Amino acid sequence: MTVLNWQELGCGIWKTVVGEQQDFTPLSWMSREPIYEALEQMQGATLPFAMSDIELEATGSSRILRLPLQEDEKLYGLGLHFMKMNHRGRTRFLRVNSDPKQDTGETHAPVPFLVTDQGYGLLVNTSRIVTVHCGSTVKLNETVSERVKDRNNDRRNWKATPLSDCMEVVLPQEGAELYLIGGPTVMDAVRRYNLLCGGGTLPPKWGLGFWHRVPTLYTDKEVQEEAMEFRNRDFPCDVIGLEPGWHSKSYPVTYEWAKERFPEPKKTLDALTEAGFRVNLWEHPYVSPESKLYEPLEPLSGSYSVWGGLAPDYSLPEAQRLYQEQHLQEHVSLGVSGYKQDECDGSELTGNSWMFPSHTQFPSGHDGEQMRQMYGLLFQKMTDDLFRSQNRRTYGLVRASNAGASSMPYVLYSDLYDHKQFIRALCNSSFSGLLWTPEVRRASSAEDWVRRMQAVCLSPLAMLNAWGDGTKPWSYPEVEHIIRHYIKLRMRLIPYLYTTFAQYRFQGIPPFRAMPLVMDMADGITINETGRALNTTDGAYGKKTEKLWDDQFMLGDSLLVAPMFAGEASREVLLPQGGWFGLETGERYEGGQVIQVEPGLEQMPIFVKEGAILPTIPALAHAQLPGEKVQLHLIHFGNKPGQALLYDDDGETFDYEKGDHRWAQIEVSGTGEQGDQAFKGSISEEFEALFSYDQVKWTFGANRLPEE
Amino acid sequence: MTVLNWQELGCGIWKTVVGEQQDFTPLSWMSREPIYEALEQMQGATLPFAMSDIELEATGSSRILRLPLQEDEKLYGLGLHFMKMNHRGRTRFLRVNSDPKQDTGETHAPVPFLVTDQGYGLLVNTSRIVTVHCGSTVKLNETVSERVKDRNNDRRNWKATPLSDCMEVVLPQEGAELYLIGGPTVMDAVRRYNLLCGGGTLPPKWGLGFWHRVPTLYTDKEVQEEAMEFRNRDFPCDVIGLEPGWHSKSYPVTYEWAKERFPEPKKTLDALTEAGFRVNLWEHPYVSPESKLYEPLEPLSGSYSVWGGLAPDYSLPEAQRLYQEQHLQEHVSLGVSGYKQDECDGSELTGNSWMFPSHTQFPSGHDGEQMRQMYGLLFQKMTDDLFRSQNRRTYGLVRASNAGASSMPYVLYSDLYDHKQFIRALCNSSFSGLLWTPEVRRASSAEDWVRRMQAVCLSPLAMLNAWGDGTKPWSYPEVEHIIRHYIKLRMRLIPYLYTTFAQYRFQGIPPFRAMPLVMDMADGITINETGRALNTTDGAYGKKTEKLWDDQFMLGDSLLVAPMFAGEASREVLLPQGGWFGLETGERYEGGQVIQVEPGLEQMPIFVKEGAILPTIPALAHAQLPGEKVQLHLIHFGNKPGQALLYDDDGETFDYEKGDHRWAQIEVSGTGEQGDQAFKGSISEEFEALFSYDQVKWTFGANRLPEE
Repeated sequence: MTVLNWQELGCGIWKTVVGEQQDFTPLSWMSREPIYEALEQMQGATLPFAMSDIELEATGSSRILRLPLQEDEKLYGLGLHFMKMNHRGRTRFLRVNSDPKQDTGETHAPVPFLVTDQGYGLLVNTSRIVTVHCGSTVKLNETVSERVKDRNNDRRNWKATPLSDCMEVVLPQEGAELYLIGGPTVMDAVRRYNLLCGGGTLPPKWGLGFWHRVPTLYTDKEVQEEAMEFRNRDFPCDVIGLEPGWHSKSYPVTYEWAKERFPEPKKTLDALTEAGFRVNLWEHPYVSPESKLYEPLEPLSGSYSVWGGLAPDYSLPEAQRLYQEQHLQEHVSLGVSGYKQDECDGSELTGNSWMFPSHTQFPSGHDGEQMRQMYGLLFQKMTDDLFRSQNRRTYGLVRASNAGASSMPYVLYSDLYDHKQFIRALCNSSFSGLLWTPEVRRASSAEDWVRRMQAVCLSPLAMLNAWGDGTKPWSYPEVEHIIRHYIKLRMRLIPYLYTTFAQYRFQGIPPFRAMPLVMDMADGITINETGRALNTTDGAYGKKTEKLWDDQFMLGDSLLVAPMFAGEASREVLLPQGGWFGLETGERYEGGQVIQVEPGLEQMPIFVKEGAILPTIPALAHAQLPGEKVQLHLIHFGNKPGQALLYDDDGETFDYEKGDHRWAQIEVSGTGEQGDQAFKGSISEEFEALFSYDQVKWTFGANRLPEE
Repeated sequence: MTVLNWQELGCGIWKTVVGEQQDFTPLSWMSREPIYEALEQMQGATLPFAMSDIELEATGSSRILRLPLQEDEKLYGLGLHFMKMNHRGRTRFLRVNSDPKQDTGETHAPVPFLVTDQGYGLLVNTSRIVTVHCGSTVKLNETVSERVKDRNNDRRNWKATPLSDCMEVVLPQEGAELYLIGGPTVMDAVRRYNLLCGGGTLPPKWGLGFWHRVPTLYTDKEVQEEAMEFRNRDFPCDVIGLEPGWHSKSYPVTYEWAKERFPEPKKTLDALTEAGFRVNLWEHPYVSPESKLYEPLEPLSGSYSVWGGLAPDYSLPEAQRLYQEQHLQEHVSLGVSGYKQDECDGSELTGNSWMFPSHTQFPSGHDGEQMRQMYGLLFQKMTDDLFRSQNRRTYGLVRASNAGASSMPYVLYSDLYDHKQFIRALCNSSFSGLLWTPEVRRASSAEDWVRRMQAVCLSPLAMLNAWGDGTKPWSYPEVEHIIRHYIKLRMRLIPYLYTTFAQYRFQGIPPFRAMPLVMDMADGITINETGRALNTTDGAYGKKTEKLWDDQFMLGDSLLVAPMFAGEASREVLLPQGGWFGLETGERYEGGQVIQVEPGLEQMPIFVKEGAILPTIPALAHAQLPGEKVQLHLIHFGNKPGQALLYDDDGETFDYEKGDHRWAQIEVSGTGEQGDQAFKGSISEEFEALFSYDQVKWTFGANRLPEE
């Protein structure tokens, strides 16, 4: 047993190095300066145990980090997870996996950062796979005999996973850098983590509009026609995504335009830009022998091919330069706004075994395991750098990520498609500096279509991905009006969404927040014990289901979103303390309790806090362009005074990082007891300098969102 | 690149050691003498490549073994697998896993032995996890550019897994012992493997009867009543299985009788024995603090507890002795016939994370990974040794196995329950020296009940496992007669089954045989290309399904079994060359083709080869006891002469290994063209010395199995 020597970085973060200092890690690779200013403003950090309680044990070839666990302690985070929110009692094998169908810890973004409800976080900064035993191991000499139950006679108390008093982290053989991140709340630990990683991402405003990806083999003409149909049908849309067919060859890819479908890409992009669209290009990492990049990249690539293409070693500056130059010249300089980075998440075991194996050698000296864990980060960083060099923000999609990605302008997605898992993933990603889109591709019914579309419109990236199905927002005519309504609702909320992302950028506060980030779950948790009866087919060990409210989330400070799922007419919603209004029903609820709602297909339950002031704008066909000013509508809810912040900048460039941004303070004072007229609204002088608004309209004491 | 130095062991087997010689391996642990006599009788072994074509490459910390692959080569084996028969194009991660729901290679019995249809086998003899890239990796410098396809324009030819010319085996870091096993046929390689492992197992005759496991908390009285109900209802039954409730405490277990349910175990066992039953006891490896074994075993156990119990280090002779002495005294000497070894198959990632972790330290110096891979073997060997010491054969169930287990009297089972997967597992286990039971627990309908019961009656272990559901063979009264018929059919076939197992024991020929073991599949394979159209929900990469006839199998030399599955009224059957009769329909088919059958619920398609001579007996209530003689009915089929062997011994002891056994030769000569009377049957003089028969009845030229 070794007691570790933790070095205080200040700001409630402690660091130590086990084994050799590694030079290829998520944090070193992202190389973002922590946001010290915000860290220093945070309250004093605490840890729920003495640092000397953390032990390092060397057993055989393993290095095991051991941390104490309280009996009811819950463990959150560890990246993008679909099956569970609380990892307590599970072993998590944090390997990148493109097809995470089993609850093993493998996923597109296996981030070795966890937080617990005791109020601290732990980050293992490594390019290798980490295994975390989240209270799933019990040392023999620490086994508490009172906890040993007789399943014959005491089945209710017998547990398939016995309670453990410690968490064990299996570190890579060569060691790892460890960060201990203080609380006292879960949110504090998550914020510190995000600030350590350089703060959250701030997308360009157009990224917050609606996205539509067209079928893979569409020609330039078909793309333009489909884009214009959005305008003609009064469906807002900001981004058109092109799928593999834009490449001259795909799987592996060329990164070169398919002449037969896009003979004049510049002209096509210009026409789309003219109509207010941005274009996002699908790509993956594997370079076709028919690409001009093949020859120069070949000596800079891994020792195994993928689909016959190169797997370039983008940890090499020369490989990065080749990729960036080509992308700048062929796409970005033509107006392309960003990328969808597919298939950077293979493991050798899943899907169709297409990924390079662990034993692949890369010219940099890294092996296949490291490159698989890091590949998603490499592409995020390389493209972010490319757009930064043009002083343009990008926003895109990526299928793999890892630690340190909070500041990256990328949203995760998956080929999975279970709607409840999608919402759970959205919640879970908030613990790990990740963003996730519950993208819509197709539906099993009009009801499913509506429920998926409603939810995606209140998510980090509102996208219909029609690459394979050719769906359109109006694919189910009988519910077209509902879909239009929710896309427009998102457009109206852009000032609120943008301010929420600015909180992420500057304060490290996740824009979409799982419930344990915003309230103490001890009161709000219901334990449903189901399936404890013997069931030889579905669960020989019985089942215990914890209700952790992983099917609802906060969007910013004021909105609570509770998606509906096809086949379910009603649902429970956990409301935190305070007064709440159904954003579209006007019904008032007292918080601090679980309510039951039965919203009908037209509505997804969204709740707004009493006293909240929502900044909104009219639902435009696409997000405002720089310099385009509209009326700001400030909507205050309920009978309590309130305060809010409104963030703004040019919406497109990195000038905001040089100070070219504003926070306006909004305040509603008075009381609504004698009617609306008794409220008074004020907005600080920064408003005059905001980029996007030419006038203000106020609504006081609303109980629902007014019609436009 | 290193060329290996293979040492010829004679008999078509070559061996080499990579790295250090390991002293804790499957083969060294089982320590069975190869059956050299049978090996020597086999024809000259061949390999499909020069030994110098096998390369060893050291890359970083990995040692990779590379072997050439032909374009159409198929890879079989690698243990008990539920999802696929041919592993070509997949990466197989051979870790023990108690809940193998995904197609990664993990399973209850991940045996690092494979055979290919080019006619050779490869065994990696190690206690560690092996990863086999079965043609799922392509080196960059060996990438064939003609194979790179454009998925945009040539979707039909694009492959999710590109064709690879080599198989790569990732060896454990410390090295491994390798065996190369010659063909020329798949069967030859499998036989040599089984003979290298000491030959197959020969169960006691009672093991081939019907098994019934009673609900877990049954008392002695309930057990006896249920057993007698089999006799009263005219359902044969040989073995009653007791589930966890027989232990005084379970999960973890005591190995001691629960006094409240079994106050006089000896008396209960005597009563059951008297009625012709054997008793099999469920157990698992984890020792309760309330067991008398706890204190002596504690210093001999792993450093982590499981369900609060010990995980003993049974690689230590002293731990083995303690276990064996207790089991002998408390169970075996009372008449217990064997065990069901549950939960010796945990991995840290699946189920409820109950297993000891990889980094567990055992007093022997082995770590958790090794012990998990070997635990199933340890229990098999330890109990087999115990029964051998009493000169009694056992036959039981085990949930984990590995290489070298051919001679072990154990049949694998799982908590999984997909019927098609169960039959595929039965087929696949035949490549790896394993046995598998598609045990019946419950059914979704009477049809499902019948289909599962019919299949299990033609499997290595015919068992109803009612531990949790309390089902009985007569649970669906409307189909009770069908179930009785199939259990009785099994009882009638015991002489045939027993002879078939004797072939396994002495010749290494698996009793249950996947089709690639008995015929060249090149002719018999149909490729169904399904789902190649884009499908964004179920398979974004398209799907290719190979029909490998993994839903039918040969039982011995003469019977082909083609199970039916609930919801399917008809099925295709691939018949090898020759004439075939529907065993219960009498219909004759010409082999070498695929036929379609529509059997109705009363029947499962079983086919018997023309010229076959089936040795049968009357359907007894339980298998014959030593010295009990009955009439042997030899049934000859069709219009061709034939030959067969009939094996016999005392059916219970190991005296057969000292020569106390007989092979009688049976022959039918003549031709049936002028009717039955033209056939003549003869049986060699060994018959007189057979243990089990007092007279012979002949049937010639049958086209179906005669009624009893």
